[in-house]
Amino acid sequence: MAESKLLFKGKHKHLFSAEEEDQIIMRFIDSESNFDGDHKAKFKDKGVLRTGISETIFTYLDGYNIPTHLSKKISENEIRVKKLNMLPIIVVIRNIVAGSLAKRFKMEQGHPLKYPVLEYYLNVDGLDQPLIMESHAYAFDFATPEEMKHIARLSLKVNAVLKAFLERRNLKLVDYKLEFGRFRKQIYLGDEITPDTCRIWAINEGQVDAKYFAFDDGKVQKSYQKIFNLLVLNKD
Amino acid sequence: MAESKLLFKGKHKHLFSAEEEDQIIMRFIDSESNFDGDHKAKFKDKGVLRTGISETIFTYLDGYNIPTHLSKKISENEIRVKKLNMLPIIVVIRNIVAGSLAKRFKMEQGHPLKYPVLEYYLNVDGLDQPLIMESHAYAFDFATPEEMKHIARLSLKVNAVLKAFLERRNLKLVDYKLEFGRFRKQIYLGDEITPDTCRIWAINEGQVDAKYFAFDDGKVQKSYQKIFNLLVLNKD
Repeated sequence: MAESKLLFKGKHKHLFSAEEEDQIIMRFIDSESNFDGDHKAKFKDKGVLRTGISETIFTYLDGYNIPTHLSKKISENEIRVKKLNMLPIIVVIRNIVAGSLAKRFKMEQGHPLKYPVLEYYLNVDGLDQPLIMESHAYAFDFATPEEMKHIARLSLKVNAVLKAFLERRNLKLVDYKLEFGRFRKQIYLGDEITPDTCRIWAINEGQVDAKYFAFDDGKVQKSYQKIFNLLVLNKD
Repeated sequence: MAESKLLFKGKHKHLFSAEEEDQIIMRFIDSESNFDGDHKAKFKDKGVLRTGISETIFTYLDGYNIPTHLSKKISENEIRVKKLNMLPIIVVIRNIVAGSLAKRFKMEQGHPLKYPVLEYYLNVDGLDQPLIMESHAYAFDFATPEEMKHIARLSLKVNAVLKAFLERRNLKLVDYKLEFGRFRKQIYLGDEITPDTCRIWAINEGQVDAKYFAFDDGKVQKSYQKIFNLLVLNKD
């Protein structure tokens, strides 16, 4: 890490140059997240927990032939990844009604969805991440129709694999966001998959418990640690 | 019409029973429309102009094997149509940036879109017609995945046919809305296609003139009459 240069200082991650020209180093910061208004929290070693969780999930997805940016974990809060050209689109996948979806449709939180819902939000400067249709993305040249179809297919595959992975650990994947990027004309899954980007509920005795994530700091930290234990260490 | 019963009194149309059990009579009212905030206007014989324009367009679409609800024009402001079971989805098709799309994406009005944009809005009581993704429609059981795919295909076909039809009359189809319904397990195009549901600009000497629809009452009436003349009477 001695010669790596800081390339970008984001709120949640700092990006550094890597020895490999087509890769970068991603450092996870102990930042405060705000996923859909839920579990705002900042605590020590949050970056470490996120790094471990994200590495475990991306490695698992890779085993199902889902192309991800992950190359290698290089320290407890750093991974080396492919340098993707990120698409300005946030994909939100929902399996259960919660958060902003409940508000928008005046639906009860916890209602299971008949099919997974895919939402696209435009992530460009000056706009407040508006919901967009696939056709907005290609009409405005944010992505090609082929790329949007590929992203939808990949997202549904991630969902099937990840849902089952969490369910075997008594966790319910309620909703979460994914980001994709281009690398050598192919689409790869980028960014992170962690409790910062997911709404996860616990399954207690077969029942989904919508209170897995409490809103006070202490409990959020405990939840991150518990998810880390379940996914990374494979123990309770 | 003597024995027909009033079934529904909408703001823009009154619906009556028909002799045929699976059909209804649709009467176009001289109502005030407000398409995307544009050309609010109410004037005498607006219903007559809309009836003529809609009948002409639906008959034309029928010639291209697009299934529509239209059976027969029965008076100057009434048509008989198949009694569709309407889907609670409004399809908006856009060929050029205008209106709410320009606002949402901070884009300049008049910018041509590389591909037509399809937007779906949910039309149910208690909600303010939120933009929805295809997957919301089937996750919440408003329509099946097959129906949504069919609606998208039909909408793009309507767009190709209608755009060309209007362009031959020096009119530019900027954006408009469509509504669909079920009838004997098939999807049909319903409602109306008129200046009440479309944003149409004039093409003057090859240039698109974004001021076809003026905002004062007199000019809106003149625009409706001109579109009627061009489409229904096939004269200037």
